[in-house]
Amino acid sequence: MTSRYVINASVHPKGSLETLSQREVQQLSEAGSGSTYALFRQCALAILNTGTQIDNAKTILEAYEDFEVRIHQQDRGVRLELINAPADAFVDGHMISSTREMLFSALRDIVYTENELSSTRIDLSSSEGITDYVFHLLRNARILHAGAEPNMVVCWGGHSINSEEYQYSKRVGHELGLRNLNICTGCGPGVMKGPMKGATIAHAKQRLVGGRYLGLTEPGIIAAEAPNPIVNELVILPDIEKRLEAFVRVGHGIIIFPGGVGTAEEFLYLLGILLHPDNADIPLPVILTGPSDSAPYLQQLHEFVGATLGETAQQRYRIIIDDPAAVAREMVKGLKEVKDFRCERNDAFHFNWLLKIEEGFQHPFDPTHENMASLQLTRDVPPHELAANLRRAFSGIVAGNVKDKGIRRIEQFGRYEIHGAPEIMKPLDALLQAFVAQHRMKLPGGRPYEPCYRVVS
Amino acid sequence: MTSRYVINASVHPKGSLETLSQREVQQLSEAGSGSTYALFRQCALAILNTGTQIDNAKTILEAYEDFEVRIHQQDRGVRLELINAPADAFVDGHMISSTREMLFSALRDIVYTENELSSTRIDLSSSEGITDYVFHLLRNARILHAGAEPNMVVCWGGHSINSEEYQYSKRVGHELGLRNLNICTGCGPGVMKGPMKGATIAHAKQRLVGGRYLGLTEPGIIAAEAPNPIVNELVILPDIEKRLEAFVRVGHGIIIFPGGVGTAEEFLYLLGILLHPDNADIPLPVILTGPSDSAPYLQQLHEFVGATLGETAQQRYRIIIDDPAAVAREMVKGLKEVKDFRCERNDAFHFNWLLKIEEGFQHPFDPTHENMASLQLTRDVPPHELAANLRRAFSGIVAGNVKDKGIRRIEQFGRYEIHGAPEIMKPLDALLQAFVAQHRMKLPGGRPYEPCYRVVS
Amino acid sequence: MTSRYVINASVHPKGSLETLSQREVQQLSEAGSGSTYALFRQCALAILNTGTQIDNAKTILEAYEDFEVRIHQQDRGVRLELINAPADAFVDGHMISSTREMLFSALRDIVYTENELSSTRIDLSSSEGITDYVFHLLRNARILHAGAEPNMVVCWGGHSINSEEYQYSKRVGHELGLRNLNICTGCGPGVMKGPMKGATIAHAKQRLVGGRYLGLTEPGIIAAEAPNPIVNELVILPDIEKRLEAFVRVGHGIIIFPGGVGTAEEFLYLLGILLHPDNADIPLPVILTGPSDSAPYLQQLHEFVGATLGETAQQRYRIIIDDPAAVAREMVKGLKEVKDFRCERNDAFHFNWLLKIEEGFQHPFDPTHENMASLQLTRDVPPHELAANLRRAFSGIVAGNVKDKGIRRIEQFGRYEIHGAPEIMKPLDALLQAFVAQHRMKLPGGRPYEPCYRVVS
Amino acid sequence: MTSRYVINASVHPKGSLETLSQREVQQLSEAGSGSTYALFRQCALAILNTGTQIDNAKTILEAYEDFEVRIHQQDRGVRLELINAPADAFVDGHMISSTREMLFSALRDIVYTENELSSTRIDLSSSEGITDYVFHLLRNARILHAGAEPNMVVCWGGHSINSEEYQYSKRVGHELGLRNLNICTGCGPGVMKGPMKGATIAHAKQRLVGGRYLGLTEPGIIAAEAPNPIVNELVILPDIEKRLEAFVRVGHGIIIFPGGVGTAEEFLYLLGILLHPDNADIPLPVILTGPSDSAPYLQQLHEFVGATLGETAQQRYRIIIDDPAAVAREMVKGLKEVKDFRCERNDAFHFNWLLKIEEGFQHPFDPTHENMASLQLTRDVPPHELAANLRRAFSGIVAGNVKDKGIRRIEQFGRYEIHGAPEIMKPLDALLQAFVAQHRMKLPGGRPYEPCYRVVS
Repeated sequence: MTSRYVINASVHPKGSLETLSQREVQQLSEAGSGSTYALFRQCALAILNTGTQIDNAKTILEAYEDFEVRIHQQDRGVRLELINAPADAFVDGHMISSTREMLFSALRDIVYTENELSSTRIDLSSSEGITDYVFHLLRNARILHAGAEPNMVVCWGGHSINSEEYQYSKRVGHELGLRNLNICTGCGPGVMKGPMKGATIAHAKQRLVGGRYLGLTEPGIIAAEAPNPIVNELVILPDIEKRLEAFVRVGHGIIIFPGGVGTAEEFLYLLGILLHPDNADIPLPVILTGPSDSAPYLQQLHEFVGATLGETAQQRYRIIIDDPAAVAREMVKGLKEVKDFRCERNDAFHFNWLLKIEEGFQHPFDPTHENMASLQLTRDVPPHELAANLRRAFSGIVAGNVKDKGIRRIEQFGRYEIHGAPEIMKPLDALLQAFVAQHRMKLPGGRPYEPCYRVVS
Repeated sequence: MTSRYVINASVHPKGSLETLSQREVQQLSEAGSGSTYALFRQCALAILNTGTQIDNAKTILEAYEDFEVRIHQQDRGVRLELINAPADAFVDGHMISSTREMLFSALRDIVYTENELSSTRIDLSSSEGITDYVFHLLRNARILHAGAEPNMVVCWGGHSINSEEYQYSKRVGHELGLRNLNICTGCGPGVMKGPMKGATIAHAKQRLVGGRYLGLTEPGIIAAEAPNPIVNELVILPDIEKRLEAFVRVGHGIIIFPGGVGTAEEFLYLLGILLHPDNADIPLPVILTGPSDSAPYLQQLHEFVGATLGETAQQRYRIIIDDPAAVAREMVKGLKEVKDFRCERNDAFHFNWLLKIEEGFQHPFDPTHENMASLQLTRDVPPHELAANLRRAFSGIVAGNVKDKGIRRIEQFGRYEIHGAPEIMKPLDALLQAFVAQHRMKLPGGRPYEPCYRVVS
Repeated sequence: MTSRYVINASVHPKGSLETLSQREVQQLSEAGSGSTYALFRQCALAILNTGTQIDNAKTILEAYEDFEVRIHQQDRGVRLELINAPADAFVDGHMISSTREMLFSALRDIVYTENELSSTRIDLSSSEGITDYVFHLLRNARILHAGAEPNMVVCWGGHSINSEEYQYSKRVGHELGLRNLNICTGCGPGVMKGPMKGATIAHAKQRLVGGRYLGLTEPGIIAAEAPNPIVNELVILPDIEKRLEAFVRVGHGIIIFPGGVGTAEEFLYLLGILLHPDNADIPLPVILTGPSDSAPYLQQLHEFVGATLGETAQQRYRIIIDDPAAVAREMVKGLKEVKDFRCERNDAFHFNWLLKIEEGFQHPFDPTHENMASLQLTRDVPPHELAANLRRAFSGIVAGNVKDKGIRRIEQFGRYEIHGAPEIMKPLDALLQAFVAQHRMKLPGGRPYEPCYRVVS
Repeated sequence: MTSRYVINASVHPKGSLETLSQREVQQLSEAGSGSTYALFRQCALAILNTGTQIDNAKTILEAYEDFEVRIHQQDRGVRLELINAPADAFVDGHMISSTREMLFSALRDIVYTENELSSTRIDLSSSEGITDYVFHLLRNARILHAGAEPNMVVCWGGHSINSEEYQYSKRVGHELGLRNLNICTGCGPGVMKGPMKGATIAHAKQRLVGGRYLGLTEPGIIAAEAPNPIVNELVILPDIEKRLEAFVRVGHGIIIFPGGVGTAEEFLYLLGILLHPDNADIPLPVILTGPSDSAPYLQQLHEFVGATLGETAQQRYRIIIDDPAAVAREMVKGLKEVKDFRCERNDAFHFNWLLKIEEGFQHPFDPTHENMASLQLTRDVPPHELAANLRRAFSGIVAGNVKDKGIRRIEQFGRYEIHGAPEIMKPLDALLQAFVAQHRMKLPGGRPYEPCYRVVS
């Protein structure tokens, strides 16, 4: 680490934190310690490393162990003092503008918003309350543009995909950008960066000023998946469920690229919502796409949906193989329907209020043996609940195979007992094995996959 | 009233109310009844009459007795339905843009802000809390522009001045505008309009885009003094004291034109603040000005200040007679000092945080016999307190002469007993008599002025 | 003249003269002498007096006899040095922006454009060539905005009208401005200023940024009718005929207010063009309007047209009395037709290419006895030629009564002999007498009107 | 060619060709044939292929042999009809905005400007006249921004460099962009694209709107080196010498990357100008830079300059190896000096008027045996003339080795006889051999290098 360059600097905010009251500044500076501080410091460090090639959170954190960020109060406003900050974030002593913006986005979302919202009327115990909370976070981050056309395309997929899949995601982004569509991803590299990069060049070609590259992240992810420098709007949601809700409420269409188990979970989350009877008439274009080599993978996912959730579920998305222009054209068509529907129903363009998201989707699922045992995975539960349960089961099994906590649980209490019908559990098992075979689920220590559950009836 | 034209219309917001949550919209629509409704309806009617020549609140209210405004909720946002609205606010069925803006400013400040702030952490029991409240109201109205140069000139003076004084205020506004300064007044006609009109033409001459014409008003005044159509930023503060605080916190300099008893009270309010020891070093240029004919009036005010508050008080302002260009040049010089001071002290340009305003100035003074008797009007109280007490005494005596409630009190309990030193009370009495003589204080029924108080020692 | 304030200053251009080649700068500086210099000096002085109340060219020229303007060459561009310039054009030593703009508009149009165009391919001997010349002057002045909506309303009328007519023109301008229409006039006071002033306030009310107040003038007029300070685009055309052509090619509709003999001539010019068979299908809304008191005057003009040019001519305009809103609504309707027509015919919005203007309209008419005698004023000439001849006859007779040169000609050679049919000459004579009676044609020395012509058959 | 996709389309101009006179449109449409047409068609085809990977002019021209472009006249303006155009230039039937812009840039520069300038006062027989011509072409293309900071950095170098050199040019562009500098290159791939790409990303990081990527090309090059899609301002100069003059007049600093013989010629051109005694005091930062592996090449160039033109010549540039940030910092420093100098001398920022360019540099050099024999390559000619002669000799020898015409001349008339001193000719020969060895000069058919000249005394 002798070659590590660091810098000390003091930066002022730009944007939403420019006009703070004295009390707000004081609250901010008080937050310069404790657990909120640790969280903010970690996010700040991730942001200051934006653009470097290291995307290993641990490595970064270790490399800049002595990094500190202090929040100072001044009559005039708030000021951040950075000590031993990565020098790459600066040019001739001045912090790069995008880095400065993101740094204050983090301060806003982690410290300010928390203070602001915690002290008031947010009701996190009801579904409406949580949606309201997500709305306030997004509005406070100034990403809800009243009146803007519905053209925000969410791109989901793996962040450690192969080069061919990455190039493909860039080409899709390019075709979306040529049609003046904006991109929203979860920040970080891989599919989170490819479409933004493609769209940036396409927007330049179309002389589009004001192209949006929206990154939605959360504290647990940002360190490992630092926002790529193209992101020009960044929101740090408090947890995974709020972040997922933000995606489906601000996105007007969703493209799913090949990815790992995380992407599959997101896909099941989405199907669970779209299959809710209240959402039957709400248009939301969903496209699964990838290069030719990814066709078998997408086909398998498709068959799994057919086998478990049925044809209705399959009709909520389209699969397009190796044809970026067709993906973009199909998306344009779908967004037209979204626009017509919102106009007709008088719903906002900037936030999908009408979409029903049940409370079950808004809270984390903890895969204890008890919770896993209580999942209903049979045909007699309605499809949208089945989708939700499948997502939970999938998530639990993945945890039991790859996560420290999950593996330890299995070691301690034995395999999960899942109450599932064979016609559902068999496809699930097949899917999991395929993920392993395709290196989309990485087992620790390279050991072979072994089911961490058994089906009971 | 047979020739009265009315129109029914439905309007959508533009600006800060475009992105509301469903809960916020619901709260708004619930406010469509009760006392908040009455207040909002009255302000709305005043705004819809902007630009007409009638500035008599009572006449307007009577002319449009059947006017109604309904707040509707839609998934997409809020919508106002107007019934029997004055037709002058519309062109070929479309509401004039500035009227629409002001209408939603009123909705924002009266209904939305009230809801928002009442439910949360505003602490109206401390001086800091009140300042914080004023800050939040102003920030929510988006009038605090971070980084903008300190060039907001507050103009105070009468709203029913003579034609010569009106023309003079226009000429001063013109000279201010030629130097790219912005104008803030209390809305309404007279001195509230003259400087804005002059500045508008001057800004056009200087090709200045984005000139600001800020109107600060309150519900009790707006009906009688409707915002003139030049106002392009409107804030409705909840009461007179909040409005006065807003003036001195957002204004970078203050010009006082001839006016009535109200203007004199504002002048005493200002001196009370500026004489506070904590504010001794804070620059705030104050200029008293008027045409030649107003010189004796300004001279008298000046002598009154000298006789009661002393030379130190006189040094906080300058008097310039009949020279608009000199007024503007002096203001430019003063604003330069304000800028240097704020830079040096790191204070915000958009809000004068450093100015000390004691709690006594933030609450209304009720001139009961008891309150009047407890005022200390002697040389042994510090000047800033004496200024505050003088303002209260002045205000109480005016009330005792011209206001219904005040007159009735005097009739019931006899004259006020004021504990004042003769060297202070005599100049006060002289000033009051001069106001009457110059028709600047109008006694009901044209009866002669008779002191409603007696001095006790 | 002891109280006259003057200033010496040096100003740099802004706008089209910012990027000049060295050769262009050299040509400009060479023009700092000779007849072009005299012309430029005169226009510059008029512009520097913009906004003052003196609108008497002679007075201004005499008051600033020692005013000089020098054109300097610098590697970096051109610079104007002003010596003994009116101090009113400056604020604290800095020239007012609009004045600076207009000054360089004059330099551009008088010096630069002349150089530019004279040396090249302009063909002033053909009708197309003259139109091309007008087009180049306007494009070089950057007033042709490709793609802008057809909403430029030309306002014609007297510059020394009575107060009632002035107020009325302001009200009409206000109603036009409320409908987002732009104003084009001939600069100067009276009807040239009223509609612009009304529109300025209306545009502010509608929050319209970029409202256009286009002034078209020529060197012979500008000194007497200095551009009012609201004008934000100024073009100095080389003579009256080019200026008239500019009006009808850039205007999308025309409003004629009461005026003097000049306005009547403009009206006949317009009818002459509109009655040309090639222009029969080309929409161009024309409205004659005035306050109630002006109704008889407009009625008389209308009857004169009916009696001489017939009903077809009367159908090319509408008369609306004392109803500004109706005028604006009618104009909006007419502009809609203009837009539809141009779209259909693929003609530009910014220049009325399709309008046929015969060469006779593009050259000045010199009212010699010979020229007057050769005018055909009978029913057997086509209406558009009759209109042209009427305009010439009218112009000649006015000159014979009021202009130095004309009066001397009559004194020398006796009355004009005009070959006219009685049914045309009688209404003409009646019209002229009415103009005298209404003080719209001012006879020198207040002597009574006496026809300066006799009709021969 | 079965897989070739073509499209027919009709496009309207945007930008400078929006407001044309009828005569101008007619002239344009007449140019739709003859040699100007052939030139325009070729450029149009190159532009329509922008962004594809094929950079072989011949291949493109053959692939779209049936491509046609027709210029149509409409009252409203000009319209281009494209037949059998490459489909890649369109998205869902709409031409990509940047392509449309460049297409009309070509029309403007090749057809319109030619017409415009040929018919007028351009004097191509004097040095000042040629400079004036270049100025008018650039101004007409609207790339001269009055008042903009001097921050246009010209990047020269090879268009077929190796991958390492390409990556390095991107990194340099990135560092320049981070410091808000703009990029000007000669269009095409390689070093012409690398710095623009790097700067684009850096400008996005710095949130810089309005970054400039200026491409200067000429008809003989554009087909082989199509403008890369990042170029947002394109000018097609009429020939190589005008293009070189444009570079040094609009660029505020120059960076030279490794390249082939063309780059070496440009370097000698630049030195020839900078060594002129009149230019001795004029600052123009010049930096030679490349990755580590290119160090020997740059060193050799440096030594050649030292051996032939001497130390004074070496002091007009700096060499920086493998340090993009240092290059950018050095450039920032140099641009500061340029700015100070121009301010002091009152020279324009947008065009380097003060730079003396002798007529010899403004005309092509034809390497006949006679011309080659008359070159003076001895120490007794002044350095700036020696530099000019070296460039000519170098250019002639390269032609004699690689160009059809040159090779044929040598075959026909034998080797060139060059009158040169050995201390100059030896380094020249060494340089040429090194270029061959490094594959920077490609000999036809892979045959070995053999000097095509002999030195005579």
